[in-house]
Order: sequence, then structure tokens, then C-alpha cells
Amino acid sequence: PKKLKDNVVNFALETKKLGQEDPRRIFHALKVGFAITVVSLFYYFQALYNGFGVSAMWAVITVVVVFEYTVGATLGKGLNRMISTCIAGFLGVVAHYLADLSGDTGEPILLALFGFIVASTMTFMRFFPKLKARYDYGLMIFILTFALVAVSGYRDDEVIKMAQQRLSTIIIGSCIAMIICIFISPVWIGAEFHFLIASNIHKLANFLQGFGSEYLKMKDEKSKEEETFRQQYKSVLGTKTTEETMANLASWEPSHGKFKFSHPWKQYLKVGALTRMCAYRVDALNNCLNSDILQVETPEEIQEKMKESCKKLSSELGKVLKEVSLGLKKTKKTATAKTQLRETKKAAHELKMLLQETSLWEKFNLLDVLPAATVASILIDIVDCVENIIEEVHE
Amino acid sequence: PKKLKDNVVNFALETKKLGQEDPRRIFHALKVGFAITVVSLFYYFQALYNGFGVSAMWAVITVVVVFEYTVGATLGKGLNRMISTCIAGFLGVVAHYLADLSGDTGEPILLALFGFIVASTMTFMRFFPKLKARYDYGLMIFILTFALVAVSGYRDDEVIKMAQQRLSTIIIGSCIAMIICIFISPVWIGAEFHFLIASNIHKLANFLQGFGSEYLKMKDEKSKEEETFRQQYKSVLGTKTTEETMANLASWEPSHGKFKFSHPWKQYLKVGALTRMCAYRVDALNNCLNSDILQVETPEEIQEKMKESCKKLSSELGKVLKEVSLGLKKTKKTATAKTQLRETKKAAHELKMLLQETSLWEKFNLLDVLPAATVASILIDIVDCVENIIEEVHE
Repeated sequence: PKKLKDNVVNFALETKKLGQEDPRRIFHALKVGFAITVVSLFYYFQALYNGFGVSAMWAVITVVVVFEYTVGATLGKGLNRMISTCIAGFLGVVAHYLADLSGDTGEPILLALFGFIVASTMTFMRFFPKLKARYDYGLMIFILTFALVAVSGYRDDEVIKMAQQRLSTIIIGSCIAMIICIFISPVWIGAEFHFLIASNIHKLANFLQGFGSEYLKMKDEKSKEEETFRQQYKSVLGTKTTEETMANLASWEPSHGKFKFSHPWKQYLKVGALTRMCAYRVDALNNCLNSDILQVETPEEIQEKMKESCKKLSSELGKVLKEVSLGLKKTKKTATAKTQLRETKKAAHELKMLLQETSLWEKFNLLDVLPAATVASILIDIVDCVENIIEEVHE
Repeated sequence: PKKLKDNVVNFALETKKLGQEDPRRIFHALKVGFAITVVSLFYYFQALYNGFGVSAMWAVITVVVVFEYTVGATLGKGLNRMISTCIAGFLGVVAHYLADLSGDTGEPILLALFGFIVASTMTFMRFFPKLKARYDYGLMIFILTFALVAVSGYRDDEVIKMAQQRLSTIIIGSCIAMIICIFISPVWIGAEFHFLIASNIHKLANFLQGFGSEYLKMKDEKSKEEETFRQQYKSVLGTKTTEETMANLASWEPSHGKFKFSHPWKQYLKVGALTRMCAYRVDALNNCLNSDILQVETPEEIQEKMKESCKKLSSELGKVLKEVSLGLKKTKKTATAKTQLRETKKAAHELKMLLQETSLWEKFNLLDVLPAATVASILIDIVDCVENIIEEVHE
């Protein structure tokens, strides 16, 4: 009983957390409830008047299956479902008539054969990467509708009427789902995607700004509160798949707000990829704070010398990235990012010069100098990454 | 017409490529075709004898929807569908009777209310990460079945009979799909996952072995054929999401071959994460071959001196990883990996010593030395990663 109580409490806490994190989730749940209520009422009354009969339940099924959290996903599924049902229903009726011509014994054999061929080819087509990305659901519905229409035609001679009814109820269901999804507090996946890319850049900027002060502190000064900036950027490393899915779903969405119908989502993928490349380098930078080989104590004299230059470069980089992220959020071209980049390059150049001053380094052995030098070289490397990001963002 | 012809040719070529890459895809397509033929025949004859009536089409729907490429995915969906339908069907019948008690005017209102509550709560529960991972499909089916049973009960007074029929046809459909998926040339996602983790390690090993010889060549000697090893490892960087999905699906699979039912899939995720951490460092190593700052020409004298040490360490690391990957593939604990690791550590120590020889480095300025030193430090860093991987693999 105590364990049960704990579970219930945990469950309630998590519910609260999920709701607070993003209240749109609660709205979404209510929207789904509303859509299902609407379509069931429709089912009652249509059925009472015998308008659609049993087929009316397809409207309920369609709403449940098609209604997704984001507009892009809902539209993608809804359109896939309607178009597939339409084509497959037509072919199913055709197959049914062909089979009908071949007499009573031939009919079931021919229908089974058609079913086998359609199911196999469509299943194989689901392996094509391009089709899988956009039409996976449609291909599945194609198999489903074809099998149902062709097969049930054997018993029901009113096969065309049945196909029509199913198609119209599916269109009604899809439309109810899509309309409610779009017009009641919609969640545009395009906007989410836009925001994700911008906030990924922002996370890197946070790290770089934090790194400047953190790296140069003595080991024992580190406070736990400031450790958080070191975890944030990690989420950027693994978002490749998410970004691809989002770009794909976003392309289903109509023009909304500042996003046009043919918004260049592919461009966002490029920016995302460059951001991730930058994140790998930031990860290398983070490793410098923990790494074993780089744990050798850097002579304080060197620390002193590198301090200013590294700090400057790191926080300049952070500033530029924040500017880029901000510009991206507002979908504005900012000239400030480019001028700031010039500042950053200057800082990088200074650091390079420092590395070249033979007189400065010759007293130490290489291993002692390595930590500072590695940090410097990674920072200089990041400058290039950032430049690439800026160029791609401005396209 | 020419464009059309090109499209057809491309399509045929891609079909051939997909089939050759993995002939199991063709088998899968045929299996789906077979399953649908079986279930439609079943539908014919059952329907002829009026055993299940219209409900029989649920068997066809179930097969199409549940049948997935891998056993884990099919079992997960099949079990989710059966259990959800069972519970939701029962609750739907209860809701129907409760509504029935409240008279003719109260009935539709109560049913609509129940539908709204169930749909909203279940939709919200789909946001819980743990539930989403394993029971997302089940929750959707729950809403679907509840809505259908509760609502259609208004018209059909034989609501229990209908619920029973639907449940039994769904169980039949799920079982046909699961049996055909498991017993005709099954694709175990557990085995695929196992293989993915091992081959990821193998890719890193390939890179490290190739790197030893490539890095130390002069720039113009680089041949394009040898460039491929530098691309292979990149796929390792982005497999986090894939691995998580696979681990999740694998846990649905029963005992098969060398994998027990409670195979420690979570352990694989840990190995995968460590491998990815290692891959980030390998990426840094790869950047050394392109990077701007590290493009400064390393004095030949240094190259000469570092050559042997770096080459040795790099290929030792490659060897160890190949051993680990091989041991993992065979699910055997290999002592060889550990003894080889000792060799590797010796090589790393030598390299460290080399970095500490002040006399060797003092003639050069730091920037010239940096490329070689960075490579060395990353390699030494990778040793730790590899040690972690070995420990986790041996668990």
C-alpha cells in the first residue's frame, strides 16, 4: 500500500510537471476529447437517420488515429489517409469487378492474388527512404483499404456504395481532426523547429560565455550552481533525427505567421548540421575541463598569460552566437553579427600571436603547456564554425 | 516522356539496390502479402458462415496495422493492441450500461461525457515519456476502442456480443501477424541492435587504424580511395535515437538464439553512449586533418619524431577496439582485449614521455608544434574512452 501511494504521488507530480512545462499539452488533450465528442455525436445522429450505417464508425477511427500534437503531423496523416483511401478504394472496386468476371470459383482466387500482390509491393515500397519519410502512413492505409474493399466486395454486392461511404466518412473524420487541430490553439511544428534551431545556437553561446570564466578559475573554486551551463549544450549533440523529422513534418504545413508555405526548411537542416559540428568542438572544449591528460597542472604563469586572451575570445564567440540566435528568432538579418564576428576574429588572431611567441613558452615542457594550447586551438577552430553558421543563416 | 522514363529507370535501380542491400526486405514484403492473404481467406469463409459478420474485417485491419519489419515491433504492437482492446472494450461496455440507466435523454449526454474524459486523459498520458516509449500505441487503441464500443452501443443493443466479436477478431489478427512474423525468417531487432553496437565500435577501430597511416602521409599523397574510412565513423555520431528505439523494441522479444528474454539491453545503451563519446573524440581527430589552425605546416623534424609513436598508439587502439567488437559479436568475454589494452597504455605512456622531452621541442614555436601535440593528446584521451568501453562491455 505504501508503494502504491508513492506511485500515485509520483504520477500526480509528473502530471503536474508535464502540464507546467508546456500547458499546450493540456490543451491538446482537451482538443482531442472535443474532436472525439463532436464526431461521436455526428455518429449518433447520422446513424439514427441511417445515413452512413456502420461505415460511420470510420469517422471516429479516423479522428483518433489522425489527430496528432502538431499541425504538420495531423495534416500529413490526414492528407495521406484521404488520398490513399481514395486511390486504393478505386482500385479495390476495379479489382472486385475483374474478379467478378471470372466466375464463382475464380473470384476468391483472383481476389487473394490481387491482395497478395498489392500488399507485397506496397510493403516493399515502404522501404524507399523518400517514400518512407513522407508517405509511410499513406502506403499502409493503401494496403488496408484495398484489402477491405476488394475482400468485403465478395459478400456485399453494393461494393461501390460501401467504398463511397467509407471514403466520405474518412474525409469527414480527417477534416474534423484537421480543422480542430488548426483553429483551436494550434501547435505549428514549423515554429517549434525554428525555435529549436535558434535555441540550440543559444545553448552553445551560453556554454562559451560560461566557459570563459569557469575554465580560468582554480579547481576548488568551482561551484555546483555554475555546472549547469556545462550540461545544456549536450542536448544539441543528439538532435539530428529530431530535426529531420521536424523539417519533414513542417513541410506539410500551410503558410502561417511569418512562415510561408515554401519556407526553406532544408536550409534549417543545414544550419542545424553546422550547429552540431560546432557542438562537437564545444564538447571537446568541455572535455578539457575533465580530461585526464589535460589535468596536469598548468603552470600559473601560463594560465595568467592565456587567461585574458582565451576569456576574451570565448566570450566574444558567445556574444556572436547569441546575436545569431536572436536574429534567427526574429527572422531578421542582423548586420551586428557580422561586425561582431570581425571583433572575434581579431581576438582569435591575438591568441594565435600569443601561441607563436617562442620566448614565452620555451621554459616549459610541452605536456605542461598542452592544456592551455589545446583550449586555445579549439577556440580558434570554433571561430570558423561560427563563421559558417552565420553564412548559412544569412542565406 | 524522357523524364518519365528516367524516373522509371531510377525507381527500378533503387528497388534493385534496396533488395540487394538486404534481401530480408523482400522476404518481409512477401510475408506481409502472405499474412493478408491468409486473413482475407479467413474473412471469406467465416463471413460466409456468418460467424463474425462485419467484425471479421477487424482481423484484416489488425494484420495490416500490426505487421512490422522486426519481431520486437510486431510483438509490441500486437500485445498493446490486444490488451488495450480488452480493457477498453470492458470499460466501454460498463460505460454503456451506466449511461443506459439514466434514461433516453441522459444517455447520449453521459456517453459523450465519458468519451471526452477518456480521450482527454489518455491523450495526456501519451506525453509521459515512460508510457510513450512502450505503450503509445496501446493508449491510442484504448481511446479508439472505448469510443467505438461506448458509442456504437447506443444503436446496437447487443453491445456485449459486439465487443466480444471485435476482441476475438483482433486477437486472431494479432496472432496471425505475430506467428508469421516470428516463424517465417524472422528479423530479430535484438540481434540487429547487438550487431549495430558491435559494428559502431568496429567503425571507430577502422578509423583509428586508417588514421595512423593517413595522418603521417604528406598532403599530396592522399588518395581518394582511402578517404572512405574517414566517412564511416560519422554514422556513429547520430545513432542515439535509433539505439534507444531499438533497445525499447528489443525488450518485447522472447528468448531467441543467444539472447535471453531479460537480456541486459540497457547495458548495450551504456556501451553505445560510451562509443559515441569516443566517436566525438575521433571526430576531433578527423578535424585535425582538415582544420585551419592545424594546417600550419608541421616542421618535418617533428613529424618524423612523432610519427612512430602516434602511428603505434593509433593502430594499437584500433586493434583493441576490433578485439572488443569481435568479442561483443560472439558474446564472449575476451581476455585478449585487456592484455592488448596494457600494450596500448604502454604506447600512450611513451607518447606522453615524448611530449615531456623539453629538449626536443624548445626550438620551435608553439603554433608549429600544436598540430602534432593535439593529435597526440586526443589519442591519449581516446585510450581512456576505450578503457571505459571495455569495462562496460565486460559487465
